[in-house]
Amino acid sequence: MAAPDTIFANARLADGRKADVAVTNGTIIGVDPAGQGRHPDAEIIDLQGLLLVPAFVEGHIHLDTSFYGDAWRPHKPCTSGFDVRERVAFQAQNLAAAAPMDVRARSQLDLCIGNGSLTMRSHVMVSADVGLRHVETILAVREEYRDLIDIELVAFPQSGILSSPGTAELMDEAMRLGCGIVGGLDPASFDRDVERHLDAVFGIAERRSAGVDIHLHDGGTLGVFEIEQICARTRALGLQGRVAVSHAYGLGDVSADALSRVAETIAASGVAIMTNAPGDHAFPPVAALRRAGVTVFGGSDNIRDSWWPYGDGDMLSRANIIGYRSGFYEDRELEAAFDVVTEGGARALGLETYGIVPGARADFVTFAAAHVPEAVVAMPRGRTVYRAGKVIARDGRLLG
Amino acid sequence: MAAPDTIFANARLADGRKADVAVTNGTIIGVDPAGQGRHPDAEIIDLQGLLLVPAFVEGHIHLDTSFYGDAWRPHKPCTSGFDVRERVAFQAQNLAAAAPMDVRARSQLDLCIGNGSLTMRSHVMVSADVGLRHVETILAVREEYRDLIDIELVAFPQSGILSSPGTAELMDEAMRLGCGIVGGLDPASFDRDVERHLDAVFGIAERRSAGVDIHLHDGGTLGVFEIEQICARTRALGLQGRVAVSHAYGLGDVSADALSRVAETIAASGVAIMTNAPGDHAFPPVAALRRAGVTVFGGSDNIRDSWWPYGDGDMLSRANIIGYRSGFYEDRELEAAFDVVTEGGARALGLETYGIVPGARADFVTFAAAHVPEAVVAMPRGRTVYRAGKVIARDGRLLG
Repeated sequence: MAAPDTIFANARLADGRKADVAVTNGTIIGVDPAGQGRHPDAEIIDLQGLLLVPAFVEGHIHLDTSFYGDAWRPHKPCTSGFDVRERVAFQAQNLAAAAPMDVRARSQLDLCIGNGSLTMRSHVMVSADVGLRHVETILAVREEYRDLIDIELVAFPQSGILSSPGTAELMDEAMRLGCGIVGGLDPASFDRDVERHLDAVFGIAERRSAGVDIHLHDGGTLGVFEIEQICARTRALGLQGRVAVSHAYGLGDVSADALSRVAETIAASGVAIMTNAPGDHAFPPVAALRRAGVTVFGGSDNIRDSWWPYGDGDMLSRANIIGYRSGFYEDRELEAAFDVVTEGGARALGLETYGIVPGARADFVTFAAAHVPEAVVAMPRGRTVYRAGKVIARDGRLLG
Repeated sequence: MAAPDTIFANARLADGRKADVAVTNGTIIGVDPAGQGRHPDAEIIDLQGLLLVPAFVEGHIHLDTSFYGDAWRPHKPCTSGFDVRERVAFQAQNLAAAAPMDVRARSQLDLCIGNGSLTMRSHVMVSADVGLRHVETILAVREEYRDLIDIELVAFPQSGILSSPGTAELMDEAMRLGCGIVGGLDPASFDRDVERHLDAVFGIAERRSAGVDIHLHDGGTLGVFEIEQICARTRALGLQGRVAVSHAYGLGDVSADALSRVAETIAASGVAIMTNAPGDHAFPPVAALRRAGVTVFGGSDNIRDSWWPYGDGDMLSRANIIGYRSGFYEDRELEAAFDVVTEGGARALGLETYGIVPGARADFVTFAAAHVPEAVVAMPRGRTVYRAGKVIARDGRLLG
């Protein structure tokens, strides 16, 4: 074992252990009981019992469309009922008047990093209208932030694939440019053709050896049917562990029996489910899915954009919302909500090493809390964010 | 008009006006357009565009049973389903091991005041088991805090009235000692006799010329029936404007038609509805009730106690939760959520003067936000809390 250059001493870990975390060249090389095996040449950073947890995983965000840090843009409802096309038109109008996309994306990244997320999956719009403009901008911003945060981009057909001719080709090109994941959008309710939509999505995924993450707002049995179809495609292509369904509201609508059947299929197919625990309608039952062996991960989704005004880019407060909305009161339940924004995200995104374990990069967050359940209910501020063992943010603000 | 001793200059008010707020002897005496009529002898406090809003109204809290600031007490679920009696027994066990009640109540008050609540309604347990012990302790703490916060106490029959013989007499005595409001608890599901429970509650209210605030968790048509009975009693005794139903989950369960009928009755009876917007079950539809003319007010309810681990004693984050759970996205909706924790609370509690208006005590909170909708989504920290024109808390901490 190499000699550590830094020891983060007297950390309280998520499992309750009081430990010293030894780091060399930005990688964790040892996690020992506090006070044991401190190398004489290492710099000691005494955390004095602060909770030290892995940096959060922001599993679903839209870096291209937020107005966070820009002028306030009042929400306008659809003229009658909710209509994605009308919303996209409203968004286009808002974006035309907004600060440049790269400026807004940086505001959002600074917010997320300051709160402690150092891995992120962002969907980025691709459509006949916007072409690859959003992807090119966000790819450039990703490059700027590469030392601070790992960002995986999803080529996201916000205006549909069949509904917006040429989108499939643009998505394919977006993958070539650097997107890692193929997106999708409500194959039934938006593109009105489940199979042809999925043909396009999984076709690109197969060609590009890429994963898949599909926005699925469709509710009830329709949503469940589409999830079953996505699971079948996943198994057929051997993509287990590389496919996610975001939102999957339908899972919150169906009976316990129906849920139990589809949950088994989802687990067996290695498909992950992303939720942000929306406020006023059904969403996937986190506990039941986890019990069935499904990977559940979390995301902020939209942050102050044309879809809603909420969002704070803080995955610890997202864990709180997920717990609150799920009726999680017991310690083990609050720990499950925390898992959704940490380990669950790492599993869904296929991170090879993650956590406070030897071999993982020293990406972590420290703050005052006695343990994870308290962290989830109290959402403490005053955090310090470490990237590869170096402080990059304090009290919500990026350094340097 | 008396000369102001202090002018809070360049404040941004909730309605968007940039104003100077003139204060004399702790009372607001003028609200003028910024820069106009500044008296030469007054001390000028330049707020530089900070939002200045009335101090929040914490409309429902339990000062006697929180463990906030005390050791963490893991939540334990009921052995099968939810059972209030089992919960009360768990609570008794927890309380026996906890820090003294006055210490815990102070922690909670410091938290609430630090966040900007300067008016509060707290329920306090009265039962054959605990007698008047809780009431006596909380009355003494109220006295200690009288210069900082106005606290109205509810004699709350946590173990029922009929189910806990002697409770009605104890509640009557609690009113004599200084409680201002008669409480109640699920007349149907807990005491199994709606009319005799309400006889006791409204009997004490009539005798003591007091208001009423009843905990009503009963759902669906049963809850609605009980609300109708409470409304009828309210009208019969001429108690319009002085009766509240807390939780009233049933209002979130029934059809739009049934809701519309009962909302009309509630409005016509001058009965207020309190909600904390719980996370995982139905709750009163805030917008529909407000449209019908019902006063809706908000509260933290339990904060880290034997009922659940959540709660932060912050009515601005409560407005956020109420908005999030209600699907409030538009500016006017976010403003409605804010009204629930400010003006709505003032109406429900029957405050004679409230707000940033001449004649009201200079109780307000300042923080950085462009307007109320942004405040509700961003829940800014860095607040300064003023009581009668003097700073009493900054950044969440009480001064002095």
